[in-house]
Amino acid sequence: MRILAVDTAARVFGAAVAEDSEVRAEVFARADSHARHIMGAVEAVLALSGHSLADLDGLAVTIGPGSFTGLRIGLSAVQGLAVALDLRVAGVMVLDVLARQAAREGDTLWAALDAKRGQVYAACYRAEHGGMVKIREEQALEPREWLEAISETTPGPVVLTGDGALLVRDVLVEALGARAVFAPGHCHAPRAATVAMLGRELFAAGNAVPPEDLAPVYLRKSDAEIALAKRLESSGKHSKPAERD
Amino acid sequence: MRILAVDTAARVFGAAVAEDSEVRAEVFARADSHARHIMGAVEAVLALSGHSLADLDGLAVTIGPGSFTGLRIGLSAVQGLAVALDLRVAGVMVLDVLARQAAREGDTLWAALDAKRGQVYAACYRAEHGGMVKIREEQALEPREWLEAISETTPGPVVLTGDGALLVRDVLVEALGARAVFAPGHCHAPRAATVAMLGRELFAAGNAVPPEDLAPVYLRKSDAEIALAKRLESSGKHSKPAERD
Repeated sequence: MRILAVDTAARVFGAAVAEDSEVRAEVFARADSHARHIMGAVEAVLALSGHSLADLDGLAVTIGPGSFTGLRIGLSAVQGLAVALDLRVAGVMVLDVLARQAAREGDTLWAALDAKRGQVYAACYRAEHGGMVKIREEQALEPREWLEAISETTPGPVVLTGDGALLVRDVLVEALGARAVFAPGHCHAPRAATVAMLGRELFAAGNAVPPEDLAPVYLRKSDAEIALAKRLESSGKHSKPAERD
Repeated sequence: MRILAVDTAARVFGAAVAEDSEVRAEVFARADSHARHIMGAVEAVLALSGHSLADLDGLAVTIGPGSFTGLRIGLSAVQGLAVALDLRVAGVMVLDVLARQAAREGDTLWAALDAKRGQVYAACYRAEHGGMVKIREEQALEPREWLEAISETTPGPVVLTGDGALLVRDVLVEALGARAVFAPGHCHAPRAATVAMLGRELFAAGNAVPPEDLAPVYLRKSDAEIALAKRLESSGKHSKPAERD
């Protein structure tokens, strides 16, 4: 089957076309502006693959965790394509992408994205029987919490990948010593080619969905929501000081 | 520094723009026809990166081993750009690219490309002190010769990467058993983003060259040369049978 995959979840964006297990073409860029490039990237990757939209059998997109704006732009673009082309969509978790790119058989592996505000989004996997088992679900963690979680998952070597791992590299190395094994530099950003491969597996397992059922996975409230809550709390303080004290 | 990298050596092609240690954009595709796409890919990757040819400080290109036609097309395109822009070029070995993409600190690693005619192009590396040391230079080897070479380099685990390793995967697993550690699927094709990173290191070490000094590394005679040699030998047999017997 032919899949078009789109990724705009993190600080990069990409699009890829895969035919069965082969990546036919991929486009990747730093995301200074997702909106400016995403449909251009889709058109470019289709041209490189020698296919058109009409040749596609399915779509895949990263659904989170990641940037609120990035996720919404990617999902909206893919939902638009899916409705117009009458195709189903595989929603792919970003940390699954990072883990898959770095894993060797037998690894215990933590994938982590820089979540800003002093946190990472992290999940833990074991690579076994040619596949990946998620042994800790995605969470937003502070470095100290992440180290505690790592210590609970394995006493042996821990493969670390993603820009969240690079962000706190010194902390990880100090705490884990020689147990910390960093993935090659090439693996630390999610690639749409890998999104396509994982999307294909979701289709094969019957887990692709109609576009209207696709929902982002945020893990955390947006900066806007937090700011609003603070403003409400603060205005509450001013108007009802007696109740607060 | 800003580098544009081009790779057309193997059965894929790509172009990437990197700014210092950051990959700004990359385009990747299966190479059904290098010639049809290479300058289109260069234009696409520049547009994605937000830069123009005038912004570049240097060029990088894979110089081999690989397909004769692919290498000549990539080198010609990059030489043309380098002459026009008055830039130096870093010539990058393809197996170095594959090794870098897959290596973790401490690894002994063999990178191999399918060289057709029952051979692989293979080289061996050790990842140490944050860098790579090549402990066996590139050679064209038959699977049996490759296994002998592997047995001479390490008694421990061997990380295997590249489409040459996938080609003879069963042979490697049978001979090496649990010592055979295959790189993640994501690593097996060279990526222009990695060519850019290695090109940058060659520039920093003063090993970039003027375009006229750039030469492909073939390791083997071309099919055309072999066919010509056979025809000459065969015509020699016909015209001078007495001398041969």
